[in-house]
Amino acid sequence: MHPNLLQPYLRREAWCDVVPKPKTLPVDALAPLFQLDRAVSLSLQEQIRRTFISAIGSGVLPASAKLPSSRKLAEALHVSRNTTMIAYQTLIAEGHLVSMERSGVFVPEAHLDLAELPTQIVDLATVESPSVMGQRLVAPPLRPRSTIIAPPDWQTYRYPFLEGRYDQSLFPTTEWREASRMALAVTEVEAWSADPGEGDDDLLIEEIRTKLLPRRGIEARRNEVLITSGEQQALHLATRLLVTEGARAGIEEPGLPETRALLKGRNAELVYLPVDDDGLVVHDLLANCDVITVSPSRQRPTAVTLPLERRKALLELAETHDFLIIEDDFECEMNYLDSPIPSLRSLDGGNRVVYIASLSKVLAPGIGLGVLVGPPELISAARRLRSITTGRPSPNNQRAAAHFLALGHYDAMLRRLKNVFEERLIALRDALNHYRPLSIAISPVRGGTTYWVSGEPSLETEKLFRAAQARGVLIEPVDRYFAASPAPPNTFRLGVTSLPTSRIREGIAQLSRAMQELADSNGRRSVSRTEPAASAVSGQQITEALSGATLFYRTVYGETSTIILHPDGRMTGQSGEAGEDRDTGRWWVDGDMWFRQWKEWAYGEAVGYRVALVEDQIWWLDAKGNKVDAALFVEPN
Amino acid sequence: MHPNLLQPYLRREAWCDVVPKPKTLPVDALAPLFQLDRAVSLSLQEQIRRTFISAIGSGVLPASAKLPSSRKLAEALHVSRNTTMIAYQTLIAEGHLVSMERSGVFVPEAHLDLAELPTQIVDLATVESPSVMGQRLVAPPLRPRSTIIAPPDWQTYRYPFLEGRYDQSLFPTTEWREASRMALAVTEVEAWSADPGEGDDDLLIEEIRTKLLPRRGIEARRNEVLITSGEQQALHLATRLLVTEGARAGIEEPGLPETRALLKGRNAELVYLPVDDDGLVVHDLLANCDVITVSPSRQRPTAVTLPLERRKALLELAETHDFLIIEDDFECEMNYLDSPIPSLRSLDGGNRVVYIASLSKVLAPGIGLGVLVGPPELISAARRLRSITTGRPSPNNQRAAAHFLALGHYDAMLRRLKNVFEERLIALRDALNHYRPLSIAISPVRGGTTYWVSGEPSLETEKLFRAAQARGVLIEPVDRYFAASPAPPNTFRLGVTSLPTSRIREGIAQLSRAMQELADSNGRRSVSRTEPAASAVSGQQITEALSGATLFYRTVYGETSTIILHPDGRMTGQSGEAGEDRDTGRWWVDGDMWFRQWKEWAYGEAVGYRVALVEDQIWWLDAKGNKVDAALFVEPN
Repeated sequence: MHPNLLQPYLRREAWCDVVPKPKTLPVDALAPLFQLDRAVSLSLQEQIRRTFISAIGSGVLPASAKLPSSRKLAEALHVSRNTTMIAYQTLIAEGHLVSMERSGVFVPEAHLDLAELPTQIVDLATVESPSVMGQRLVAPPLRPRSTIIAPPDWQTYRYPFLEGRYDQSLFPTTEWREASRMALAVTEVEAWSADPGEGDDDLLIEEIRTKLLPRRGIEARRNEVLITSGEQQALHLATRLLVTEGARAGIEEPGLPETRALLKGRNAELVYLPVDDDGLVVHDLLANCDVITVSPSRQRPTAVTLPLERRKALLELAETHDFLIIEDDFECEMNYLDSPIPSLRSLDGGNRVVYIASLSKVLAPGIGLGVLVGPPELISAARRLRSITTGRPSPNNQRAAAHFLALGHYDAMLRRLKNVFEERLIALRDALNHYRPLSIAISPVRGGTTYWVSGEPSLETEKLFRAAQARGVLIEPVDRYFAASPAPPNTFRLGVTSLPTSRIREGIAQLSRAMQELADSNGRRSVSRTEPAASAVSGQQITEALSGATLFYRTVYGETSTIILHPDGRMTGQSGEAGEDRDTGRWWVDGDMWFRQWKEWAYGEAVGYRVALVEDQIWWLDAKGNKVDAALFVEPN
Repeated sequence: MHPNLLQPYLRREAWCDVVPKPKTLPVDALAPLFQLDRAVSLSLQEQIRRTFISAIGSGVLPASAKLPSSRKLAEALHVSRNTTMIAYQTLIAEGHLVSMERSGVFVPEAHLDLAELPTQIVDLATVESPSVMGQRLVAPPLRPRSTIIAPPDWQTYRYPFLEGRYDQSLFPTTEWREASRMALAVTEVEAWSADPGEGDDDLLIEEIRTKLLPRRGIEARRNEVLITSGEQQALHLATRLLVTEGARAGIEEPGLPETRALLKGRNAELVYLPVDDDGLVVHDLLANCDVITVSPSRQRPTAVTLPLERRKALLELAETHDFLIIEDDFECEMNYLDSPIPSLRSLDGGNRVVYIASLSKVLAPGIGLGVLVGPPELISAARRLRSITTGRPSPNNQRAAAHFLALGHYDAMLRRLKNVFEERLIALRDALNHYRPLSIAISPVRGGTTYWVSGEPSLETEKLFRAAQARGVLIEPVDRYFAASPAPPNTFRLGVTSLPTSRIREGIAQLSRAMQELADSNGRRSVSRTEPAASAVSGQQITEALSGATLFYRTVYGETSTIILHPDGRMTGQSGEAGEDRDTGRWWVDGDMWFRQWKEWAYGEAVGYRVALVEDQIWWLDAKGNKVDAALFVEPN
């Protein structure tokens, strides 16, 4: 609990005169707790005593709160003052209450420790003897398959690689406060406070319709747009309205468990649609679907992007086989390599598409706002459904978001986030590439905020999660994204929304060490234990073999690097699709170790390895003789 | 649309130099609209032209917006400048765009009129040829049975008697702004912005748990409370989790259509439970239910209150027949006649009760916040369900509400609203009693903000609605509250949350005139046309009959008034259960008319009537001889 809020009820400390005098708990707030019954055998005094004990025990009476006088309590409860006085005295004698001379009766301090209260979120699995109501609960939706999840106190970890959670530097505090203040102007308050109605904020609709949607190629009229309290609500409304009982509903595999839960809630027959490095595979399975959900801009969870050709093919298939598409346009504007690809809704055949997007990616995860775009009948029905399930999203936040957009803050923030996330994703990629003991491969992404990482086949993500957690690193297990097949045990996700660039390298270094530890504790030589052993060569042999050689080398993110080791000790490298990423550096031999130092690459640091020559490959070995990485090499002519 | 937001795009008016120079629509916001395809037979120029016409027609390009130059557009679209120039020229020639010398090309002004845009909320019934998606919509929930509903522009009416909509004087603007500002402090923002998590605001939970719930007799631990985006969401979560497929679900009749829609959405078998002047009838029908919903504090929609004895009987029945109860504690603290009755959840057997309350009644309808209280398993499952259907209620509003409570504003506002609403409800009651042509009866309420009004059997609410609307009066039809039986055609609701006390009397006077008009246009003598005709007596006869007589008279709200007409022209009256409401006045005869004037009652105004004497009754007649009201009279001894 926030200490400031309790302040008024805190009792006066002798050592501190500036602490304000405690406010007494108002007697009319207290009185309804006491349901005194003169008919039962228990005395009134005893009934009062029991009520106090229960209310203190459950924390309903806040710790250190001052209680009303016995006289006032007696009046409020219509009992004699003796009754309340004796109740107080007994409670004080028993230690349930404390008496402070000349200041009154208080709830003891001991209960101030919130940690002793039951945790707020109860795992259903831990409930041993369910209540009468618990026994009758309809199968609770979305029971997580994963036993390991991000801890709620993730912000206390130094290296939380968790997509979708934001480190505090990202919230546009100043801009949001400005927009919120505008929404709190008296005339504005009048506009949004009076009505529990179904309508959305006209300004926000206009801003979205004329500024955000056109960027995705979408022209929408006012009656084709509904504001939601986030993309999840938009998905709920769309699935509820478009998925009939027993319909065949296609869902990406891997895909979001929340989407699965919504479709199962409709008693749909789920069709699991495969995903490859280009996103949803346009596949025969689709032909049997009545409706499908897809995240083309950034596949969730693998972060890959559906190319334009596949989008067109998907829409053609939808027309041919008469199915509908629910498009989750996640991270639509977070492409770094190229421009965003037009949304499905905006393409020919888009009349079969319901479009869903979130504003929270830019505003902040804490501000839940999203948008649903579809034909007027759908939007009208969705508005109705929204009104009976939740009501419209907070109109004050809608208005603040409208100002945020109108002031240009959204665009500015989007640009800023794009820069920040690109920088972080590159930092993550480079770190993954640098700490080669990982022996991993990552999904080929065009942007976004996350990598889908596959390690050696022997890697066990669950063990890695715990080993990394002990080093302050949080990774995301992926089993919850799989339903039709078991999740690959060697796969996890790394996201960059939740930690600054400056911590990424060290976080991956720690993760790398955790992986190495795991491998060591398994009694294996290294994570790449499947490789045959090889012997390090001497410094002399290194110099002879590598002077003037060209090395061909594959990065962790799938690109080829070419490195030339000039005889004079210079080193030049180029990488990227068109060799656009270049660097120079130096190499040398010291004893039997080979050293290299780039100007930019690999953090510009000097690193030394032992070297083995195996057929046409050069292997770099660490101090224990474990293979760290390898490259093809071509000797000088 | 708010003119200020459009301002940057408005073109410069020659007559006004202070209008800021219009901002040009950014070309990168415009470009994605154009999906140019070189493969099709349509020329690029024609494709550009068609895109513009569509975007202007749909309002995606705001009226009066300035367009980028043909050069910039050409660059962005990767076409020749000729292409964009010709497109612009054609569009200008056709009138789709306008050219202003030396300032550029603009979207015409004509589209600025929002009234020409499609209305935001489409009635499904009006859609003539549904889209491909419209044809596949799952039966949209909650199609209103009523053809007449409150117009969205109700705030422009002078006399809106609409419960649940607030006139602007009621919103605690200053206090809410203070609380919101506190929630916008940088450290606060950090607390709520980072995470899209499932948890609620700890401060708000504590405030509700320790201040609001105890007033309703409820002790709840932290894991027994969930914040919702209003009572409707709480109801959605509770029904979804406690009503199994095909369960028998009891619902009050009349009752809320939204609740019915939720239960039908669960494919429940609905059991309609009768309601009388004491609320839900504890009835054999209940024994067959698996779960029931009930609004004991203020029955929705009749506004009556369930007495304590019935509450206890209901809980006993629940125990005997093993059903669960969803308690909607609507307007729990709005009793004026006596203290609130303890909630079902707080009584013996309350472990079978899920408790629902709204904070919006005090905060404002626009701030949707509510609370769900139940056992930890239920709350845990509800949290899960909330996370897949909407996400948690806006954390910034949760935090602001927590501050609002902690600062004591909630209590202060509650007291204020109680005073205001009581004053208004009494004003409404007195006005209804005064304008007797209404010939109505109202529900016996202990408080709240609304009356359930029944007129003469011949009254047709639908006609009255339109006649009243023409006079600036909005009443609420009640057919939407009935499902098992047709609504009584002569019944409607009048609420007082939406207009100040000062307008209530005139509003009811107007309503009364509308009723009289309706009766007249039906060719009937009066709304009480079923009465036999009676002849007015002379002034002399009036004086003889009434001097010293005692009149017994029943108010519209069911109380008996006793009026003594003293021979000296004084008049004394007493009313109320214990005769606690007293007044004095004068009566006299002028010609053949009887006049009376109270000091306080009936607004202290002098009124004259013709009089008929029918057996032991005195009838007051208006100028046309129609009976206005009647009383029993006892002649002086």
